[in-house]
Formats: sequence, structure tokens, C-alpha cells
Amino acid sequence: MSVTADQQAQIDAARGSPRQTLRAVSDGIEQHLYRVHPVLDHGFVRVIDYMGDDSAICQAARVSYGRGTRSVQNDEGLIRYLMRHWHSTPFEMCEIKLHVKLPVFVARQWIRHRTANVNEYSARYSILDREFYVPDPSALAAQSTTNNQGRGAVLEGDRAQRVLDILRQDADRAYDHYEEMLDENGLNLARELARMNLPASIYTQWYWKTDLHNLFHFLRLRADPHAQMEIRAYADSVCAIVADWVPAAWSAFRDYRLGGTTLSARGMDCLHRMLRGEGVTQETSGMSAGEWREFSAVWMKDTA
Amino acid sequence: MSVTADQQAQIDAARGSPRQTLRAVSDGIEQHLYRVHPVLDHGFVRVIDYMGDDSAICQAARVSYGRGTRSVQNDEGLIRYLMRHWHSTPFEMCEIKLHVKLPVFVARQWIRHRTANVNEYSARYSILDREFYVPDPSALAAQSTTNNQGRGAVLEGDRAQRVLDILRQDADRAYDHYEEMLDENGLNLARELARMNLPASIYTQWYWKTDLHNLFHFLRLRADPHAQMEIRAYADSVCAIVADWVPAAWSAFRDYRLGGTTLSARGMDCLHRMLRGEGVTQETSGMSAGEWREFSAVWMKDTA
Amino acid sequence: MSVTADQQAQIDAARGSPRQTLRAVSDGIEQHLYRVHPVLDHGFVRVIDYMGDDSAICQAARVSYGRGTRSVQNDEGLIRYLMRHWHSTPFEMCEIKLHVKLPVFVARQWIRHRTANVNEYSARYSILDREFYVPDPSALAAQSTTNNQGRGAVLEGDRAQRVLDILRQDADRAYDHYEEMLDENGLNLARELARMNLPASIYTQWYWKTDLHNLFHFLRLRADPHAQMEIRAYADSVCAIVADWVPAAWSAFRDYRLGGTTLSARGMDCLHRMLRGEGVTQETSGMSAGEWREFSAVWMKDTA
Amino acid sequence: MSVTADQQAQIDAARGSPRQTLRAVSDGIEQHLYRVHPVLDHGFVRVIDYMGDDSAICQAARVSYGRGTRSVQNDEGLIRYLMRHWHSTPFEMCEIKLHVKLPVFVARQWIRHRTANVNEYSARYSILDREFYVPDPSALAAQSTTNNQGRGAVLEGDRAQRVLDILRQDADRAYDHYEEMLDENGLNLARELARMNLPASIYTQWYWKTDLHNLFHFLRLRADPHAQMEIRAYADSVCAIVADWVPAAWSAFRDYRLGGTTLSARGMDCLHRMLRGEGVTQETSGMSAGEWREFSAVWMKDTA
Repeated sequence: MSVTADQQAQIDAARGSPRQTLRAVSDGIEQHLYRVHPVLDHGFVRVIDYMGDDSAICQAARVSYGRGTRSVQNDEGLIRYLMRHWHSTPFEMCEIKLHVKLPVFVARQWIRHRTANVNEYSARYSILDREFYVPDPSALAAQSTTNNQGRGAVLEGDRAQRVLDILRQDADRAYDHYEEMLDENGLNLARELARMNLPASIYTQWYWKTDLHNLFHFLRLRADPHAQMEIRAYADSVCAIVADWVPAAWSAFRDYRLGGTTLSARGMDCLHRMLRGEGVTQETSGMSAGEWREFSAVWMKDTA
Repeated sequence: MSVTADQQAQIDAARGSPRQTLRAVSDGIEQHLYRVHPVLDHGFVRVIDYMGDDSAICQAARVSYGRGTRSVQNDEGLIRYLMRHWHSTPFEMCEIKLHVKLPVFVARQWIRHRTANVNEYSARYSILDREFYVPDPSALAAQSTTNNQGRGAVLEGDRAQRVLDILRQDADRAYDHYEEMLDENGLNLARELARMNLPASIYTQWYWKTDLHNLFHFLRLRADPHAQMEIRAYADSVCAIVADWVPAAWSAFRDYRLGGTTLSARGMDCLHRMLRGEGVTQETSGMSAGEWREFSAVWMKDTA
Repeated sequence: MSVTADQQAQIDAARGSPRQTLRAVSDGIEQHLYRVHPVLDHGFVRVIDYMGDDSAICQAARVSYGRGTRSVQNDEGLIRYLMRHWHSTPFEMCEIKLHVKLPVFVARQWIRHRTANVNEYSARYSILDREFYVPDPSALAAQSTTNNQGRGAVLEGDRAQRVLDILRQDADRAYDHYEEMLDENGLNLARELARMNLPASIYTQWYWKTDLHNLFHFLRLRADPHAQMEIRAYADSVCAIVADWVPAAWSAFRDYRLGGTTLSARGMDCLHRMLRGEGVTQETSGMSAGEWREFSAVWMKDTA
Repeated sequence: MSVTADQQAQIDAARGSPRQTLRAVSDGIEQHLYRVHPVLDHGFVRVIDYMGDDSAICQAARVSYGRGTRSVQNDEGLIRYLMRHWHSTPFEMCEIKLHVKLPVFVARQWIRHRTANVNEYSARYSILDREFYVPDPSALAAQSTTNNQGRGAVLEGDRAQRVLDILRQDADRAYDHYEEMLDENGLNLARELARMNLPASIYTQWYWKTDLHNLFHFLRLRADPHAQMEIRAYADSVCAIVADWVPAAWSAFRDYRLGGTTLSARGMDCLHRMLRGEGVTQETSGMSAGEWREFSAVWMKDTA
């Protein structure tokens, strides 16, 4: 369990104190506020605050679409139009703030998304908890044979057990030594030095705030099957929250980005030829082997 | 008057519909929401939305200051500490969204602040209103004789009248021609072309959203006496809003940034010598003439 | 002509002084350095400096692909792979600095690309030249009847002449009055005020610096047929420079971005059905009228 | 030694191939190009590329200072003026690209500077080397008693030895297990999982590119005595490079930022009173205890 009784009491207290506001309110995300959404073995995602809703996207877009604009415009239609034509600024008008607890190696991937605000728990200043990510046996995958940065089959039996033993024992030993080095009556090493003994599986936490446009960009890359499974678990959790927060924007994002695809000029040419009934092979496609593999996986199944 | 009766009715309706929320609420800024704060002759600033309050700054900062942290920390003291030591990320955890109506030449200065989100009324798509900034006579200043980008004495009498006549007549003629070029039954020129006849005094409007850290940076530069008077009028209006929104952060900002100063190593050396009772002149200061002028204006008055 | 003899002499001098360097050099762009590439009637694009070449993209990417990586990797293949899979950071490792002279209304669109560095000629500090954009008659288009922000047929005869007369006469009068207001022996109005009488067709200039990833994003939006013709003229000029600077990256960009397209999940479903020989109509596509119009313009021509 | 013979041969080859260019060249930094500047026990900083020099800062600034500008302006004076008045954009016109090898816990601090471009060696894709930071005994400091995130006295004798033993043995064991988990003929765990067993003392490497303005901001925070000693070692190494690259900008930065200070309104008031001969104490200063401690450490020594 990643939250103490004391922390849960603070969450309950926060949820028990509704206030009045004149701002835009999204009922869908109010139900999530402060609550813990568990991710992996000790991690979580919590919504701390948000700004705006589907209407706020349209309201901002229409500053640019004032007098001389068609008077009636369906919000959902406008949002789909904006998404289809890569208008990013209206989506930037919504903002969300999350509290996330996550392993350090996931945090190192996450932080690469630079257009966001972050306050991380400081291991120079404070002492980290004894919490390490240990994968569920179902997530213990072998190195992929086809993709240098991917996973293959799940490890089984003794091999899985050996990996789990290593991860647990090394983490425990590292933390024992961390405590020994920190002991004020013993070694009393500076915190900023002692923490360097801790493995990348240790959990950290941060406040992370970003706008909806950049959040969608994050989700497109991190809820993707090519993302590492561990960060994808966080992205999936955030997706469920966004779907409740801004349902129209989420629906457009799912259709145009998550579920859509891009085609190169060569790929378009191949599809046009296929639609005219021509056969296309890698040789006649102009594509490299890797490119053709990706293209044909999506588009050749209909004609097989 | 910069707002129509219809627009005012929409504002009143928005202010008449309070909702419940579990988020942080700042009563000080709720009173400003949607209301028109007039600026210059036709411009305004309106608060459309906000996220966070003084407590939200501390809450975010303390993720980094968790276990092992002193248990009691006064919020105001923490905020002053963060401001003094240039901690920027906790202030980034508050966000504000404004609707601003402003002359194009002011908008061109404003947009240089890049870490913000903007949706501007589009003159490609829509038709601009006949509203131009014409300075109040008290603002009609001559070119400064000492500062290439500054103002000198106020113009008087016929000179002032001639300037006002030029500005008004040229603006009116330009707008007459804009309408003539747009006339669907006449020239019917594309909007994106016709707008290029309009002078930089015409009003545009936008939604502008930024975080508190970047807003403070904007205010430090634009509420400064060296900023052009017209953008300073907007900055002053925003300052009054921020003071109500996050009073502790505002107070720290006013003390450390707006009311404070910076000293170079040379300047520090001069002050140390002056404190020891030595006399300091430009020659012995190591400063250039311009640097010494700025330094002595602040620091030599006590010893004169 | 947009460059004086004195300025041309400075350009020639700069081109006449080669130096030795140990840095990566791209011969393709060296030939462009400092030279004026005319755009519109008085504008230009000049390359002032650059960092990196095609190899620099691969070199940076391979920091992430060190030991354990296949030893031989064709640079062009790697660049296509990076582009196809939306890897942005290696392209950020190239940088370009341009000197651009452009009408203010174009500058206002351009500046919306925030991830760039800009130093603009200051009309608070200095005096602008008497140079205004007046469209070539072939560019004088009527308002589009189908697209609120587009152009329709070219104006002809008296209508065109009337528009040109308005633009020229209003610009001239505005500049005459600008000079009158600035006259040090006359009205002597502050420069920061006098400039507000100038129309958006006046030329300004700036130094603009960005990385290749963000430049590609700029070009994708601004070299697009939906961009206003005037900014597209600048984008086209930059495209020609980029093609000489980083030919492999340019080729990948042209194939995957400029010449490619995106498909929504609904669009993919329609294409799959069409490939299987099914007929698809707007009714059975799940798309709105506008979406279907865009989709069918690209994909229905083969089956007509 | 942090560079292999093979790597050194590549560096020598790069330095042995000068090319001609028409770009601005800074002789001061050319001597650094590609060379290894060792930092800590296995780390380094290498300059890979740069754009611009002191003159490029002035050249960009003067676009804004064209006609109507004083004709003669000393470059160094202009640079000092720009630095003193917080003009950031001219400094953004210079760019530098570094190759850095650094411990993960340092990388985690470094990456917080978001306005930069980064390509990091990928431990999902590749295998990390067996290189860990082990502090020099002189750097093995106890936890500070006055500053939660600082260091106190150096550990001695057995205490120091015990810490070093822990750090070395845990690192070695973690790497042994890393290799065991990666063994293709053994456990063959996916690289993206195996790496989570590695401690934060392991070295990673990246290409890091930023502009001079943001580099100065980085150096101001990271070459500061309050920064952790390990990242300060990198900042100091970069400072020496910048001093050779842009000597005038470096000199201004050192005077106004590194060696300068900021004063709050309260601090200014105290100094004015002291200059008039008044005594000032914490009680009459309006400052908190912490603020007064910082103020008096700088300013009270002259009057003691």
C-alpha cells in the first residue's frame, strides 16, 4: 500500500471541503481530485488541481473566431476540427496538476517532456522511503530478439525467480547501507551523497503540471505500445482521468492521434496504387526493409 | 466604452453562476473573475480562470521537503525564502488565464514573453473593430534627449493637437479604406490582405495564460519605469489582480524584485568602501559613465 | 532593391574572409552565408550562421545508441528512421540563425513559433525605413467564398487598381506623418509613440535563430498551402536553404511531413474497407461533412 | 581513465581535420573542440560544436539598434550594458554543444534546466559501462548541522573507509548482477528492466546543447557554493571554457551575476540607513532571522 493512514486522512479531509467558485468546473474530474490511483506496486497518480474543460478550449479558440464567424458552431465539431488541423493553442488553455509517485528510471523518461512544471521530492534535503519497484512476474520479459529496446517472451520458473531475488536483495542491501550511512550517531554521511547508493528502482515523487496540448503529446508517446511498459502504466492511468475531464477533446485525440496513423509520400503513393488494384511489393514501394515491414503490417492484411 | 451591453450581459451571467469545486480557491481573485478592468482608452484586462493560491506554492515546494523536514514552517516565511533564493518551480504551480484587449504595438511587445499560451483574435478570419488607441494628452511625450528609447516632456498646445489630429485622421481613413476593401459587394479583398492597411494603434484581443513565475518575470520588466507607458498600464492592472490572488507571493515579489535591486561585484566593492567611510568616485569605482550614473543615483544620495 | 550599396559591401566583405575551424562544416549552406535571398517586394532572408550538418544529427542520436548497437548504420537510413518515429532531439542538435526582413503582419504570424530566439529592430529606439509591402497584382485575391481565412479569385482591372492605390497612398501618408511627428525641430514626438501610426504592411527586420526540429515544424505549417501566401514565400525561401544545408534530413522531412499525411482511426477504417473493395460514403464513414470533404479529396479520386 | 585509446584516436582525428568556413570563429574555443576535460573520477566535458562569439552578441543586439543609433559603440561596453539591464535575447544568439559524461544523480539535477537539447545514451537500447562515481576522501562530507541540504565536516579514518567500502562493493555487486541478468545465454532479461538495479552513482553520458543566456543561468545556479559539489565540478569546467569562448560576455557575467548580489527593498533600506551612519539590527531591519543572517554576513563586516 503506497499511502499511509495519515495521508489517507488528509486526502479524505481535502475531499470533504467543497468550496464555491465562479470558474469553469468539470464534474468528471472533480470525482478524481486528490484520490489515489495506484500504478505498479507502490506508485500512484493523484489529480491535485485542474483548469478548464471542453468549453474552455472552444472559448479560447473563438477569440480568434469572433465577428464574421458562423454563429452556431458545435463545440465537439470545433474541437475535432482543431485537432484535425493541428491547432495547438486552444488545447494549451487547459491545465492539470498531478502528484505522481514513480520509480526513478520512469521519472528519468518522464522528465524528458520539457514543457511542464515539476517539483520533485529532494533526496539532498530529505530521506527517501524504502520502496522499490519489483516487477510482477508477468512483466519480467526477456530482451527482444528483433528490437534492441524492446521486450520478448516472459521469463519463467527459476530464471524469473533469480531475477526477482537479485532485484529484491540488492535493493534491500542498498537501503540498509543507505540508512547506515545516514545514521546521525554513526557515519552521518551527507544525504546528498548517501542517496547515490540507491538503485533506479527506488520510488520518488513529484508534482507535475502541464497543459492539455503537451499532455496529449506525452500520452501519444507514452501510452504507445513502443513505450516501456512501466511508464505506459502511468500513461494509461492518466488517459482514464483525461477521458473524464475533457471528454470531447479526449475523443478527438483518440480518433486522430492514438488510433490514427501517418503516411509518408511513398506510403500514400503505394496506397493509391493499391486502391487502383495494383500489386505493391517492397521492391516497387521505394521503401527500406524496415519501413516496408511497418507499412505492410498495417495495410497489406486486407489484400492477403 | 470597450464592452457592449450584450458582452456585459454575458459577463454578468458568468458571475451569477457559482459552482462547487474541491480545488483550491482564492477568494481574493474570485471577485475579479470575468470583470472588465479598463486600461487605456478602449482596452481591458479580464481574469478568465486561475489555478492555485499561496498555499499551492508551499504545497508543491514541500514535495521536495518531505520526511526529515522541519514540521512547522510558516507559509509566508517559506514563500519569502523561495523568492529570495530564486526557487522558480513552486511559483510555476499557479496559473492564470487573462482576456486582454490591447493595441497592436503593445501586443508586439507583450508576445516577446514566450513562456505563455496565446489565442489571438484572427484578422485573417474575422473583421477587426474600429477601435484605435489615441493617447490622453498627458501621455503625449516628446522624444527623450537622454534615452533613445524614452520619453521627455509632455507636448503642449498646438503641437499636441497636431499629433492627435494625425493619429485620429489617419486611423479613421485607414479603417474607412479597410471597410471599402472588404465590402463583399465592392472590392471584396481577402481579409488577410485588407488588414495590412491598419495602423499599429488598432486594438486586438487575446486569451493569454501563464504561470505565476513567468507572470512575475513579465511584471518585473513591464511594470518597470523603463517599460513603455502603455504596456505598463496593463502591467499595473495585472499587479493589482495578483495582489488579491496570492497576497503572500505578491508581497515577497514586491520586496525582492519590484522594490529590490542588483549589485555587480564592482558595485558591492564600492558600497563596502563607502560603509567603511571611504569616498568613492567614478574614477575609483571601476565603472563606466553610464554604470556610475545608475549606481550613484541610488547610492550616493545618502552621503551627499 | 532591399539592400543598399553599403550593406552589399559589408556582405561581400564577410564572404571574402574565410577562416579555419575544426567544427562540422556543411558546404551546401556555406554558399548561402550572408547572401540576400529576396522575398516579396522589399524583404529578404539571409543566413548568418549555422551549427551542424546531417552527420551531426546521427552523431547525437548515436550517443543513445552506443555499445550494443549495430556497428554499421547508414546515416541516411538512420535519419529516415528518426523522422519516421518522431525522434525530435537529434534534429534539435542543428541550429540556424537568419536575418529576415519582413512585413509586420508576417512577423506577427512568424513570432507565434515560440521555440526560437529573436532580436528585432526596435522602433522605440530607431526609425523605421519607408518600405511597405504592396502585393504584386497576381497576389491581389478576393476573399474566399468557402474558407473564412482563405483567398479566392484574383482581382482584376479597376478593382485591383483601387486596392493598390489605397495601399500605396495610405502607406505614404502614414509615413509622411510619421516623419512629421518625429521631426526634432517640429513635433518631436517620442519614437515609441510615433510608430503607432504605421500600417502592418511596413517592413521590420530581425535576427531569428532556431533548431532544425523547430524549423521543420515552422516549415510544415508555413510552407503549407493553407498558410497565407506572404509567409509561405519566406518559408519557401528557407526550404531551399535547408535542402542545401542538410540534404538527408530535408529529404526525409519532405517525404514524411511535407508530402505525407495523417489518417484518423475513422479514416484508416474507411481505407481498409476500400482496399477490401467496399464502397464508402460520408454516411458510412462516420465523418462529418468537412472531414469527409478533406478525406475524399485525397483518397476517392482513384476509385472514381 | 574515462576515454579509451580508440576514442582518443577519434578525437585526434577530428582535431586533425581543419576546414574552411565563412562563419564567425572564436579562436579561444577552437582549442577546446573535441578535447576531454576530465571531471570527477570518470567524467568529462567535451565541446562538440559552438555558434557565435562576442561580436555575434553585439551584431544581433544592433538589429534593434539600427538607424538612429550612436555610430560608435564599444562591443565590450555594449555587452556590459546588455548584461546589466537583463537583455537576454542577444546572448541567446550564441549556442554551444557539449558531450558530457556524468553520474546519474548529477544528470538528474542537470536535466532540470529545461531550455536545452539533450540526447542521452539509452540504457533501454545499450549496455552501460562499469563506471561509478566514488568520491575522493576529501569530498566525503558529513550532513550539515545548519543546512538540511548541505555538507559539514569531512569524514575521517574508519568512518570514511566504511563509506567508501559500501559504495564500491554495492556498485560492483549491482553491476555483476546487471551483467548476470543481461547474459544472453543465461537470464537474458530485457535491458530496459535490468538497468533498474544500477545505483545513481553510475555514469551516463549525453549530448547537451544550449544557448549562452541559458548556459549563464545554469552556471549561476550550479557554479554557486550552494550547489552540490559534484555538479559544481562540471560547472567550473564549463566556466573555464566559456571564458575562452566569449571573454567579454564572460567578464560581464562574472561581474554582474557570479560576483554580484541582489538586495530586497528592506535590504536597500538597511544599507541606506547604514550609509547615513545609523546602526541597524535584525529587530530594526524588518527581516526574518534567516534573511538577516544572510544580509549581515555580506554587509555587517565593514562596520564591525
